[in-house]
Amino acid sequence: MQSLQAKASEWSGVKQDDAFAIDDTNLFQKLGLQTFINLSTNFYTRVYDDEEEWFRSIFANSKKEDAIQNQYEFFVQRMGGPPLYSQRRGHPALIARHRPFPVTHRAAERWLHHMQQALDGTTDIDADSKVRMMNFFRHTAFFLVAGDELKSQNQQPQCKHGTSSQTSV
Amino acid sequence: MQSLQAKASEWSGVKQDDAFAIDDTNLFQKLGLQTFINLSTNFYTRVYDDEEEWFRSIFANSKKEDAIQNQYEFFVQRMGGPPLYSQRRGHPALIARHRPFPVTHRAAERWLHHMQQALDGTTDIDADSKVRMMNFFRHTAFFLVAGDELKSQNQQPQCKHGTSSQTSV
Repeated sequence: MQSLQAKASEWSGVKQDDAFAIDDTNLFQKLGLQTFINLSTNFYTRVYDDEEEWFRSIFANSKKEDAIQNQYEFFVQRMGGPPLYSQRRGHPALIARHRPFPVTHRAAERWLHHMQQALDGTTDIDADSKVRMMNFFRHTAFFLVAGDELKSQNQQPQCKHGTSSQTSV
Repeated sequence: MQSLQAKASEWSGVKQDDAFAIDDTNLFQKLGLQTFINLSTNFYTRVYDDEEEWFRSIFANSKKEDAIQNQYEFFVQRMGGPPLYSQRRGHPALIARHRPFPVTHRAAERWLHHMQQALDGTTDIDADSKVRMMNFFRHTAFFLVAGDELKSQNQQPQCKHGTSSQTSV
């Protein structure tokens, strides 16, 4: 079976090394906490106002302010800042925590569209940081698409009558 | 629904703050790469030689040297060192990557038993670091038990005949 990270690279077009070039510099020190808060606020303002209802509805059961905080705390922690996310919520466990959401190829592209707009609309993010972050986001989005596909695997359906058409792995 | 981290705290008996006290110091700088390699080598040597076949068999499809490398690279990255794990494999995605394994309460306790022995058998790990690491390991083990339970949720069994006894979420 192709690994999660191999699928992410293939579908995103972003090589592993480029995706994690966020680690070659300290983006938190470079950009500061407020920039990350602004970025996530811009991002979710776009998402919660999305004219495309199918995408907007994915977030319907989450409070906007919670979504913002979860996101910027994870970004800060992953990009060289204090471990804000783990202090409050523990391990990121990205795939498991996205389990309630339908992370399709189409949803990944829509997410990335809004994030590119949010990055461009946030002041004080230099061009080099934008490229590093978008590569990371693009690879991660498709890593989550690969993770989403696990939901339909490894099932152990129990049928009251008859046999299952799915195979336990 | 109780969150993953709340379940982890309840079942492990380790509070969130204590679990992530690994972040109050830099354990990688304190202990060094070789100590992490030694710890994981000691741990998996015990695991692959475990007299309890039910536990040993969980690892039967993994190469010992791969298991060692995956583990110490994750520990190094999570405890203040270079992002060795992500450079090679991407996001840790702890719950998703443990999906192939039956992470039961009993398996978590056996894992922790071997890890305590491995910590005690590895030179150059001071008492304070041991406590921090065991709290982290204990909380994380039960975080993964909580994650394991997700596997039986959100299923969409398709039965050839008759009806499913499970409900899609």
